[in-house]
Amino acid sequence: MQTSRIDAYIIPTGDPHLGENIPDHWRIIPWLTGFTGSNATVIVTDTFAGLWTDSRYFVQADVQLRDSGFQFVKQDTAVKNDFIWWLSENLSTGSKIGFDGRTLSVSRKRRIEASLDGKKVSFITDEDLVSEIWTDRPPVSDSYAYEFPVIYAGKESSVKIAEVRERLRKRKIDYHLLTSLDDIMWLFNIRGDDVKFSPLLTSFAIVGELQILLFVEESRFHSRLAIELDKLGVVMLPYEETSGMLSTLAENSSILLSPLTTSVSLFDSIPRSMQIFEDFSIPGRLKAIKNKVEIANIGQAMVKDGIALTKFFYWLEENSVSLLHTELSLAEKLNALRYEQAGYIGPSFAPIVAYNENSALPHYSPAPETDKIIGPGGILLVDSGGQYFNGTTDITRTICLGNPTPQQIRDFTLVLKGNINLALAKMPAGSRGIQLDILARKDLWESGLNYGHGTGHGVGFCLNVHEGPQSISPADNPESRTIIEAGMLISDEPAIYREGEYGIRIENLILCYQDEETEFGQFLRFDTVSLCYIDRILIDKSLLSMKETDWLNNYHAMVYEKLTRFLTDPEREWLRDKTNAI
Amino acid sequence: MQTSRIDAYIIPTGDPHLGENIPDHWRIIPWLTGFTGSNATVIVTDTFAGLWTDSRYFVQADVQLRDSGFQFVKQDTAVKNDFIWWLSENLSTGSKIGFDGRTLSVSRKRRIEASLDGKKVSFITDEDLVSEIWTDRPPVSDSYAYEFPVIYAGKESSVKIAEVRERLRKRKIDYHLLTSLDDIMWLFNIRGDDVKFSPLLTSFAIVGELQILLFVEESRFHSRLAIELDKLGVVMLPYEETSGMLSTLAENSSILLSPLTTSVSLFDSIPRSMQIFEDFSIPGRLKAIKNKVEIANIGQAMVKDGIALTKFFYWLEENSVSLLHTELSLAEKLNALRYEQAGYIGPSFAPIVAYNENSALPHYSPAPETDKIIGPGGILLVDSGGQYFNGTTDITRTICLGNPTPQQIRDFTLVLKGNINLALAKMPAGSRGIQLDILARKDLWESGLNYGHGTGHGVGFCLNVHEGPQSISPADNPESRTIIEAGMLISDEPAIYREGEYGIRIENLILCYQDEETEFGQFLRFDTVSLCYIDRILIDKSLLSMKETDWLNNYHAMVYEKLTRFLTDPEREWLRDKTNAI
Repeated sequence: MQTSRIDAYIIPTGDPHLGENIPDHWRIIPWLTGFTGSNATVIVTDTFAGLWTDSRYFVQADVQLRDSGFQFVKQDTAVKNDFIWWLSENLSTGSKIGFDGRTLSVSRKRRIEASLDGKKVSFITDEDLVSEIWTDRPPVSDSYAYEFPVIYAGKESSVKIAEVRERLRKRKIDYHLLTSLDDIMWLFNIRGDDVKFSPLLTSFAIVGELQILLFVEESRFHSRLAIELDKLGVVMLPYEETSGMLSTLAENSSILLSPLTTSVSLFDSIPRSMQIFEDFSIPGRLKAIKNKVEIANIGQAMVKDGIALTKFFYWLEENSVSLLHTELSLAEKLNALRYEQAGYIGPSFAPIVAYNENSALPHYSPAPETDKIIGPGGILLVDSGGQYFNGTTDITRTICLGNPTPQQIRDFTLVLKGNINLALAKMPAGSRGIQLDILARKDLWESGLNYGHGTGHGVGFCLNVHEGPQSISPADNPESRTIIEAGMLISDEPAIYREGEYGIRIENLILCYQDEETEFGQFLRFDTVSLCYIDRILIDKSLLSMKETDWLNNYHAMVYEKLTRFLTDPEREWLRDKTNAI
Repeated sequence: MQTSRIDAYIIPTGDPHLGENIPDHWRIIPWLTGFTGSNATVIVTDTFAGLWTDSRYFVQADVQLRDSGFQFVKQDTAVKNDFIWWLSENLSTGSKIGFDGRTLSVSRKRRIEASLDGKKVSFITDEDLVSEIWTDRPPVSDSYAYEFPVIYAGKESSVKIAEVRERLRKRKIDYHLLTSLDDIMWLFNIRGDDVKFSPLLTSFAIVGELQILLFVEESRFHSRLAIELDKLGVVMLPYEETSGMLSTLAENSSILLSPLTTSVSLFDSIPRSMQIFEDFSIPGRLKAIKNKVEIANIGQAMVKDGIALTKFFYWLEENSVSLLHTELSLAEKLNALRYEQAGYIGPSFAPIVAYNENSALPHYSPAPETDKIIGPGGILLVDSGGQYFNGTTDITRTICLGNPTPQQIRDFTLVLKGNINLALAKMPAGSRGIQLDILARKDLWESGLNYGHGTGHGVGFCLNVHEGPQSISPADNPESRTIIEAGMLISDEPAIYREGEYGIRIENLILCYQDEETEFGQFLRFDTVSLCYIDRILIDKSLLSMKETDWLNNYHAMVYEKLTRFLTDPEREWLRDKTNAI
């Protein structure tokens, strides 16, 4: 830092693609500080070294940062003491701020700039202070690419490329920079294994009218697949050449990119004469609308996932006394049961198996330090999902292992009402997620309850479990303002978290489809596609409307009908009982 | 135009304050074309003269423009053939577009510029081609200003000024330009009579840290009121000097203004070195939150309005056979009954009394050309409001004059459910209108029905009946994304319009207040404050939930209780019957 004359060096959580799951090569903060949470920012100055993270990691950071030399700063948005605020308080006018421009998005840099407005700070964005000193750094991933067959993808890559180009033409834009790995996987019908929890291949792409540049080592492709891509007009170039290639694009041409997922380094290598259009990526918008083949496959993925979940909960109930379970051992068992299903690739995110007070932490994920032994009673929350060739799943069930308290029953029933009322929504075409969110919360609000996260996120197809651009949320942002369209797959996951006691969340995936068209316009509805029983022991029927009760009974009948032939006799009898009408 | 070398001259509907109601002096389009609708734009070129208006005025424009020399262009947003599209299609590159910059807002000019991007047109914004040829133009209004006493306003002007300055200081802004008349009235606790339907005085103001410039002829103030303003540090300057004074503000200082209500002329007179902040005005945000005195007064205004409405509907029922009624005669009768109430100033908007198919036109207002005789049966929609010293009212009731059809009963009940469900909303602090809108529509949507306008607008206090910044609407805009706060007065007006048959709308004003605070946060609710019975003959009780039925019975009990002492015996008996529990 002294050589570079930097006053403050920022290490964000991020890799050059700014996705959710960071490959080991880019997990700088865990290596440097020992803190392993999924969200943190480190600031180093001559006299200070600190780490910021949010409330879900307060306990963990406190433990992991002890004796690390890094001060732990609790990030509390209410008082705004985030790292940007710290910078504005502690840097003098004219300071130099350094970071590795490959790991920070354009949007984030702009937020930092806006907050430091008036301080006349300057940014040094090409300072990689880590690589030289991180001697045992894990190598960059270099898994093989594989074809994602059209029997799953539903649409040839050539058709997808034509669609993207058509939209570029309409907007009179010459190039489209793709930085999100799932966009690239979707566009070329390929998958890889570079990133945990998502079948992705590390790469960039630039789509032009006549040619597509794909930045990835050709050696990672089998020749047959490379030839296929070549036929599509795809030119493969080394990954490291992305910046250089961007800087040689035609003067005065135009390019579309998303500032949320484009790094400062790539952005800054675009020639200044080019016109830059900022928006969600076109593949991002297109892949959010699942096609007919994908939808049929999603139905199969849900059956597979439902079988694994049913066998899991059956096994748990049968062995609740005889075996000693912990949160981690249950997560392993559930994953093992998913592996019995054909086409299962692996978990779609770190499974949350959370017992009693742990279930009150919305983003808890069991770790050896926090692992709890599952007792004979209490609340168990299981939020998990799988990557299948038939699609990506994400489902949460909360069950009671003994006799629930009246408050638990009331809370569960209110959450269930929220889940059902969003699932039952019927709305005119053009409606947005921010409008629908209240359906899942209304009954909670009436009782003075609420939950601090969104209600629904988009879900990929054998891609990321969190996929944009749509979102069902009260937060006012471009995602929640995205129009919900037929073919979108979205989670429906209202919840209640009672700190120190328990949490309840019920999550299904819902698929939007076209309903009737009347003189007042086209209407849309949702199908609930996740398949697993909902614990009736936690339901107070007297709180449900007739419509809600009907939904539950119909849902349970469907779960039984779709799963029964894949179960053993004892499992089937058990599920019959769990899915009986109330 | 030839002298000025203008290729196209735009005449928008607008005055220098860009409010909803245009004083006669600025009603250029009716004088020029004969068309009297509230929304139109005229374009004149060497070879063309046309008028654009929206669907609610298609019939009227067709009649009124006959033989006017102006071509009537139907403005259909679906195919985008608005006047801007026409300009982009018909003007050649490099054309000159002229308009009177006093009558077009900055936002609107930007929209025109954006649409003509690439055509390299230039704008001549100081071209008033009308004044010279309009020889019998009505003079500008010059009503007297009067004090609006603090027993109604609830807060001294000095306190309001301090609040505005406090907010300016926090944002480090030097000046605040006020262009909306109601903002100025609110700030100084004055009223006037320059504009139809709102008690406003034509004026501009610039608020600075030490001094306030109020642009209005001092002769319009009684000396006592002028002295009061002088004590507040208000300097009165002639109205015509606003532009000139703006142009002399300190170099490099900053100013806050709203581009929605600031004219191009005023905007362009701001020195280029000044930093311009754009937002809703501060008085606009402050006055949306009614204070305790205003809220108590609103209660009184609602009683007065409720008495007039009850007497009106009683009289109508008693005289439905004996007298011949038309839409216009009923509107007059209702206004006369409001005039019997103390503190009534006049109607707060052009009343809508609409019979049968006329009620299916959401923005219909009776006129001699369209006036209908009220028959013995059918649907009658009455949307009206008054300006009282105690506040502004706005209420819609739809009644059936004979035996309703099953479809009318079903439609009415669904609209009523929407009205009740928004009124019953309980939501956490921080919720926005776009989130709440669905509560009023959900039951309609489930039956494939909808209405094409927003659900709720803010309402002023003895000021404009449509007041920002909040709005309850599915439209994604800054108004619907404004957070709903305790003290806001908002309309709740779901509807159904069946073209050629009838329309149903039920509108009450609802007032937001703080409800309980729980560990999950502060919650808010609404009080329904409008007071008039809802026609039970149109209600199908079997479609109402217990909660909805309870709301209706409680509401009716309150209406009766609050109005009974102001009614004659026969009126009281009649209202008792109308408000009996169902």
